[in-house]
Amino acid sequence: MIELLLVGIGTGNPEHLTLQAIRGLNSADLVLIPRKGSDKADLADLRRSICAEVVTNSATRVVEFDLPRRDRTVADYRRGVDDWHDAIAKVWSDTIRSELPDGGSVAFLVWGDPTLYDSTLRIASRLEPAPRVRVIPGITSIHALAASHAIPLTDIGAPFLVTTGRLLRDAGWPAGVDTLVVMLDGDCAFQHLDPAGVVIWWGAYVGMAEEITLSGPLAESAPRIIQARAEAREAMGWIMDVYVLRRTGG
Amino acid sequence: MIELLLVGIGTGNPEHLTLQAIRGLNSADLVLIPRKGSDKADLADLRRSICAEVVTNSATRVVEFDLPRRDRTVADYRRGVDDWHDAIAKVWSDTIRSELPDGGSVAFLVWGDPTLYDSTLRIASRLEPAPRVRVIPGITSIHALAASHAIPLTDIGAPFLVTTGRLLRDAGWPAGVDTLVVMLDGDCAFQHLDPAGVVIWWGAYVGMAEEITLSGPLAESAPRIIQARAEAREAMGWIMDVYVLRRTGG
Ligand SMILES: C[S@@+](CC[C@H](N)C(=O)[O-])C[C@H]1O[C@@H](n2cnc3c(N)ncnc32)[C@H](O)[C@@H]1O
Ligand SMILES: C[S@@+](CC[C@H](N)C(=O)[O-])C[C@H]1O[C@@H](n2cnc3c(N)ncnc32)[C@H](O)[C@@H]1O
Repeated sequence: MIELLLVGIGTGNPEHLTLQAIRGLNSADLVLIPRKGSDKADLADLRRSICAEVVTNSATRVVEFDLPRRDRTVADYRRGVDDWHDAIAKVWSDTIRSELPDGGSVAFLVWGDPTLYDSTLRIASRLEPAPRVRVIPGITSIHALAASHAIPLTDIGAPFLVTTGRLLRDAGWPAGVDTLVVMLDGDCAFQHLDPAGVVIWWGAYVGMAEEITLSGPLAESAPRIIQARAEAREAMGWIMDVYVLRRTGG
Repeated sequence: MIELLLVGIGTGNPEHLTLQAIRGLNSADLVLIPRKGSDKADLADLRRSICAEVVTNSATRVVEFDLPRRDRTVADYRRGVDDWHDAIAKVWSDTIRSELPDGGSVAFLVWGDPTLYDSTLRIASRLEPAPRVRVIPGITSIHALAASHAIPLTDIGAPFLVTTGRLLRDAGWPAGVDTLVVMLDGDCAFQHLDPAGVVIWWGAYVGMAEEITLSGPLAESAPRIIQARAEAREAMGWIMDVYVLRRTGG
């Protein structure tokens, strides 16, 4: 019997770790750290140093393994992702079987919160035999962003929509909601909106030492953000960014 | 000069505290715990025991103060809330001035995450002179709920809307989104929806020892949840609940 522990670690600040996360990691027989070759955005270093810092149980083994790469030549995006998740599930199974032949508990350090735009739960559901899955919630990039800007996410009693850059670019501002949180945006989708009456709070590498935040009316902030983002991406070799858009009055 | 530190503490599990929250509390000159008379839902006990557990800096003083009550006779809801926030800001100011006549840093323990449906930031913005405000993000009830059910909040690349019971009841299922997170629902607004094709994941006191979770197709789950909620509320004297609704196919 395998117990799988998906531990939210927050968004890059090692102090985002909760006491529950630290206890969870120390309760595991095995902590698995995935590597994506030389890709710095795999953030394996950060996971390594978190483990070095907080895993104090000498019975807990920390083991690294190589992730398969996604085949970007598959034309159908959903199919490509599905195949890739199958391949990852296979590597997990093999690694767990060889490291824990008699069963036990395995923990993964999941970026941010494990339930927010993360494939770990979906990959876990492909394992055979099915493990018992436990999730430990984490600080999300949404809340790390709002904290850095010290802004409420919502007006009193108002809703907000969490969406992706792709949807915002393709479908524009959705009806019926004045606050958007945009994630997974590779291309500054905000630049295609009518900026009138819109304010943006943007952040990259939020929570990390490299954190950059910018905010203001969208009209004047958009070019500054596009430039800052391009420069940071160039310098770091990768970027993760997230933003809140709020429409006032219109 | 006053620095105000709004520290997210998670949703009732003392282990939701992050290392950053613990450090923040111990960096403060003063930690203020509000009391609402004999109201158990003020959760002052939990805040007290968190402080007793994690505040180890002997220079940090923990002080309690009484919150004014909201005047529920004011007909205009927004006006009533505004007046109440003004009154709270006044009590904060008076308490801070008498406890820290020469300035310093004051921390508040904010339920969940301080940027999610919480008035603390709004009250802080009414203080004069304006303090420097710093926010430490916390585990939200949304992520605590999704973790307890071990479900992804979203389908791959799909959006979700965070909304209130009042909006769901008054306006029905909003257009363009298949996943809703419903908070601040005093009255099981899900019961007014057409349940066909809808699944619910519900939780009350999520993260606390009293946690109750229920899930399933809305049609059969709704009556079970309504009953469980009424019984729990009766037994505890108060309730906090949150749920995810997902529409499939429909
Ligand atoms: C695959 S999703 C994972 C989200 C993660 N589970 C969370 O809770 O935030 C990756 C997206 O999250 C956002 N993100 C994650 N970490 C971030 C960070 N430190 N700074 C800015 N955005 C971040 C970006 O929008 C990025 O495209
Ligand atoms: C005033 S809002 C505060 C939300 C909080 N800042 C957060 O991050 O979750 C209160 C609402 O949050 C939800 N909530 C907060 N704590 C909860 C808990 N432990 N279990 C279930 N729902 C909770 C309920 O929907 C409740 O009506």
